[in-house]
Amino acid sequence: MRDVAVIGIGHTRFGRRADASVQELAFDAFAAALADAGIGRDAIEASVIAAVPEYHTQRSIAGVVQEYLGLLPRPTWLTEVACASGSAAVRSAWLSIRAGVHDVVAVIGCQKMTELSTEEVLGLMGRVGDVQWESCYGTTFPAYYALFARRHMHEFGTTRGQMHAVAVKNHYYGAMNPHAMFRKEITLEKAAGADGVADPFTVYDCCANADGAACVILAAADRVPAGRPAVWLAGMGAASASMSVLRRPHLTGLPSAERAAAEAYAMAGIGPGDVQVAEVHDCFTIAEIMAYEDLGFCARGCGGALIEERGTYIGGAVAVNVDGGLKAKGHPIGATGVSMTCEIARQLRGEAGERQVPDSRIGLTHNVGGIGQYCFVQVLSREPLRGRGN
Amino acid sequence: MRDVAVIGIGHTRFGRRADASVQELAFDAFAAALADAGIGRDAIEASVIAAVPEYHTQRSIAGVVQEYLGLLPRPTWLTEVACASGSAAVRSAWLSIRAGVHDVVAVIGCQKMTELSTEEVLGLMGRVGDVQWESCYGTTFPAYYALFARRHMHEFGTTRGQMHAVAVKNHYYGAMNPHAMFRKEITLEKAAGADGVADPFTVYDCCANADGAACVILAAADRVPAGRPAVWLAGMGAASASMSVLRRPHLTGLPSAERAAAEAYAMAGIGPGDVQVAEVHDCFTIAEIMAYEDLGFCARGCGGALIEERGTYIGGAVAVNVDGGLKAKGHPIGATGVSMTCEIARQLRGEAGERQVPDSRIGLTHNVGGIGQYCFVQVLSREPLRGRGN
Repeated sequence: MRDVAVIGIGHTRFGRRADASVQELAFDAFAAALADAGIGRDAIEASVIAAVPEYHTQRSIAGVVQEYLGLLPRPTWLTEVACASGSAAVRSAWLSIRAGVHDVVAVIGCQKMTELSTEEVLGLMGRVGDVQWESCYGTTFPAYYALFARRHMHEFGTTRGQMHAVAVKNHYYGAMNPHAMFRKEITLEKAAGADGVADPFTVYDCCANADGAACVILAAADRVPAGRPAVWLAGMGAASASMSVLRRPHLTGLPSAERAAAEAYAMAGIGPGDVQVAEVHDCFTIAEIMAYEDLGFCARGCGGALIEERGTYIGGAVAVNVDGGLKAKGHPIGATGVSMTCEIARQLRGEAGERQVPDSRIGLTHNVGGIGQYCFVQVLSREPLRGRGN
Repeated sequence: MRDVAVIGIGHTRFGRRADASVQELAFDAFAAALADAGIGRDAIEASVIAAVPEYHTQRSIAGVVQEYLGLLPRPTWLTEVACASGSAAVRSAWLSIRAGVHDVVAVIGCQKMTELSTEEVLGLMGRVGDVQWESCYGTTFPAYYALFARRHMHEFGTTRGQMHAVAVKNHYYGAMNPHAMFRKEITLEKAAGADGVADPFTVYDCCANADGAACVILAAADRVPAGRPAVWLAGMGAASASMSVLRRPHLTGLPSAERAAAEAYAMAGIGPGDVQVAEVHDCFTIAEIMAYEDLGFCARGCGGALIEERGTYIGGAVAVNVDGGLKAKGHPIGATGVSMTCEIARQLRGEAGERQVPDSRIGLTHNVGGIGQYCFVQVLSREPLRGRGN
């Protein structure tokens, strides 16, 4: 099968972006990615847009973005799987190239969330949970993840301090990332003393709604521009899990993440120990700890200790969310998965500046939709890898 | 590249379906498609869901449907390009099989629209038009298409009677389709005398919002069950056009449809004259007339005459919408494109009963999103075809 590379990346600043419409954000990310790839707009054969539609006044946003980017009359389509929409879009574009239908495809994740009130956003997000049996009882997303946190604390002795250590790390790196929403460090004390959200979470355990866009340009191997750095999509995993937490086998991890990771590792022919740098879906601090375990970076129940020992800082066993993660970079839901792929490509190209993970050759993204109804895992590498089905 | 076949089709009754939730509708279509293919649920490796999210209380519907169909933990994703979402999903599944990533994929289009009031639906649909420059002035979808109709009348002398003839044909065939929303014939006089909607349209020029689901199961050539009929996806075209009608080259056709058709014909290695049966996007009667022209079934401006001469009835040059079309079958937006593929597969298998197009070997679907921001065209055939890029 054809190898597929990331040949260009572009990223806007995430945060409250009252200065730009959603299509303007998309344009900024796309223009940056074109410049990065050193190609013109005419080289793009199709686009895949990632956005959750209902946050924007304008619906069916793919067409608007396609036109604003100057990509008419080429095909475009939008993928939606809640907060994993960005990775579903990358997967969809990868499939189209692997299928031999397109050679060069732009993936643009773009979202404006701050036009709505926090209450409206919480309400819409809650409806991504199970509305028939669960969210009608008030299980907003913080409540779902607080449930996971409580269970993790109960079963494994995970502490609030360990969760706050995730926030401290992600703010530490976010402070170095010019695209991050929150560019200031915090302390364990500050996280612990902050306002509560859903017990055991304080506000520093939760990521923030944001506006922003990210773009990756994918190309078939024979269309990688000469003399430009390429990063390869070496392993692609995707899986689903039950909507209702009542039907989950356990609440201390996401079954979809375990399965998607296994698939991605198998396709790339690697194991978790081969990964030097990872972007994981830290919508809440417990989610990052669960991700360490679901991805095999440590054994089940040991995620709290891993962050406490700084094992996921640069210099540790695997550097995680060294762009600030959802926590400090912000979480414009449709853009997040694409942003993850951008960051790993940047790291594998050795262009991450002061937050560069030294000699990183293999990276991973882990993007969760809803409370784990969907999970998409990508293994990226500096050289093409060969595993099962690749 | 791998040939991809439709191996199973399933369809619910379209209409006001207060008896079933969206996931129940999806289940009914899926179960019928599995039975039709003669395979079990375990053979399905992934699903692609087509639905426009904002009509349902439950958001991010792919996960709910995946669970309700018993397809966990396999991958699922949703595609959204307004009323063309169903064809985008078929395309996405086709890509995944052609790419060698999956072998058997279920595509489920499902939508409930009647939980909202007509005003709410019109409002949401209007926001698929250009909200910044156009729909703020009241261009709902009937208004957009009325504009196209007026221009067509002005340039080519197309008449209200010719438009009503489309409705008469589609109701004639819809009366024979057990899945259709409206199963009664109408007359030209009845259409002409009905209440007005947006001049020149009466209510019989407009399709109806509906609930419903349709499913197609796609498989790689080597996974077609022995002794079962397969229909091949021989040509797949997709294109986009400007959101705003102000930026269209003309208003008497859809540039995206012309381009998508050319691409699909080229891939299949056929021309419009080879098509015996077609499903076209008759959201309004003028849209079917424009489709005849965009698809090359007749020259620009001659679509009115084509229907007046009954050229698109069974026995005419090409049989169009002999399942009732959007007009009489109903238009549950996410399901429509999948329903089109179902109908063409049924026709090519010779299983359409009293509305069978005799000896049909090549069929076509034409599915429009918005007011032509998106168009997807598929050529289906009884034997694999070989054109450019196939």
